[in-house]
Amino acid sequence: MMEDKVVCVIGLGLMGGSLALALRGKCRAVWGVARRRETVEQSLALGAVDFGTTDLQDGLAQADVAILAVPVQAILALISPVGSLLPPGALLMDIGSTKVEIMAAMEALPPRIQAIGGHPMCGKEASGLEAAQADLYQGKVFVLTPLGRTSPEALALAQAMVQASGARPLVLEAARHDRLVAAISHLPYLEAVALAQVAAGVAAEDALTWPLAASGFGDTSRLAASNVTVMLDILLTNRANVAALVRRAAARLESLVTLLEVGNETALRQALQEAQEAILAYRSAK
Amino acid sequence: MMEDKVVCVIGLGLMGGSLALALRGKCRAVWGVARRRETVEQSLALGAVDFGTTDLQDGLAQADVAILAVPVQAILALISPVGSLLPPGALLMDIGSTKVEIMAAMEALPPRIQAIGGHPMCGKEASGLEAAQADLYQGKVFVLTPLGRTSPEALALAQAMVQASGARPLVLEAARHDRLVAAISHLPYLEAVALAQVAAGVAAEDALTWPLAASGFGDTSRLAASNVTVMLDILLTNRANVAALVRRAAARLESLVTLLEVGNETALRQALQEAQEAILAYRSAK
Repeated sequence: MMEDKVVCVIGLGLMGGSLALALRGKCRAVWGVARRRETVEQSLALGAVDFGTTDLQDGLAQADVAILAVPVQAILALISPVGSLLPPGALLMDIGSTKVEIMAAMEALPPRIQAIGGHPMCGKEASGLEAAQADLYQGKVFVLTPLGRTSPEALALAQAMVQASGARPLVLEAARHDRLVAAISHLPYLEAVALAQVAAGVAAEDALTWPLAASGFGDTSRLAASNVTVMLDILLTNRANVAALVRRAAARLESLVTLLEVGNETALRQALQEAQEAILAYRSAK
Repeated sequence: MMEDKVVCVIGLGLMGGSLALALRGKCRAVWGVARRRETVEQSLALGAVDFGTTDLQDGLAQADVAILAVPVQAILALISPVGSLLPPGALLMDIGSTKVEIMAAMEALPPRIQAIGGHPMCGKEASGLEAAQADLYQGKVFVLTPLGRTSPEALALAQAMVQASGARPLVLEAARHDRLVAAISHLPYLEAVALAQVAAGVAAEDALTWPLAASGFGDTSRLAASNVTVMLDILLTNRANVAALVRRAAARLESLVTLLEVGNETALRQALQEAQEAILAYRSAK
């Protein structure tokens, strides 16, 4: 199904660049659009795209599928202009990490444009085209969030694109997606941020803090090194879900401290055991 | 210095077993003491020890150095009996993860016994002798906390033992150690526990939670899979430090949520950037 399609990836960072690399050779052509000329040249040199341009209109002129692979606020800003540049009947898709606000913007597109949301559950900490890799999507879940008016053909095309990337499509309602990622992605990020902030306060008073920190600290705090602009967009477009869960986590911490201070060993042990069982449940689902 | 010493490791789990493996061949003899006969036999079969026994008195009879490698509450219970079984002039050491309470118990030993605290800043999630490896201590910081009355010779012996294990000795005051590990180890653990608890609550309502969770969740929550008994002992013997920092982390989370809810993008971006810089500072100290 993809062999006769022209795909245009807008944004050639880690996620867009990796997607282009994975799709190239499986479609009639992969176009890449980037803001900076050097990124376009780099993507051509890496063989990530067949054609590259800094001009949105050029890139979209023959596209059957356009994929927005930029931070969420930039996706929101691009949906309308890309929609008006796309040939009639083409499919507009995005790979942003939150979906409700993006789907609302897609809903406002003219009916001649098919649209669907997407969110590949993969990534890595390094960002930019240099970090892109053809197997980044391999075997990973790729959430698709259709609009009520997304045609069965458009959905099938999106699923074929996901499969061509090596990922596994999973159709999900946007609101459900945003609730789930608040728990498994945005809360972990803000916990890592809070940990980094508290440890930085201790480090400011004791120079041995960082030299003594080992892999346990490194793993728990790793997400705090994520791209700030990307994460800020994500948090701002998933506020209610994130706020509710972060409040819940703060309350859990307060409750663990209280058990510790009063020396309620039985209840504390039970809480630690429940947490351990949750991690085992998560791992056995992998 | 170690070649003519008899070392007795009490407790042959991950940490004690790995230490025995690392020291064997570098001392006159390595004895291992475990509660269960099978563990003793397994340690002999693995070549972790030269001699093994379930009898504390047997294991300690010829020891120049005894190392307590059991959970912190068990260390506290063993200091006095091991002290009375050790030959005069021998060195008693431990490798527990908190130091203030252990040093107080060591202070009460008769003067004929030399004593020093230790804490190797390494480990891994798997526990038990099966998980032991000779290079676990290699290149890692190994904190030593002497008593006021620890002799220079005893300190030098402890340092030689640490070096023989492949680790790097770092002499530190016990109270300072406990404050630091609260920030870099015990707070990360309780944050992972809170994350696991909140995510488990979401998973109870939506079966897609675990299948959708990716490596970011896995890394941030990993410590919650730690051995519960070991961690409970650690928390209970470092209460004040842990309580203060966990309260600080909970307050940070509350403050991040408030910034998010009012949409104070500038202040939120600044907080996320500070956290990112902290992680970079931690990494550059490695």
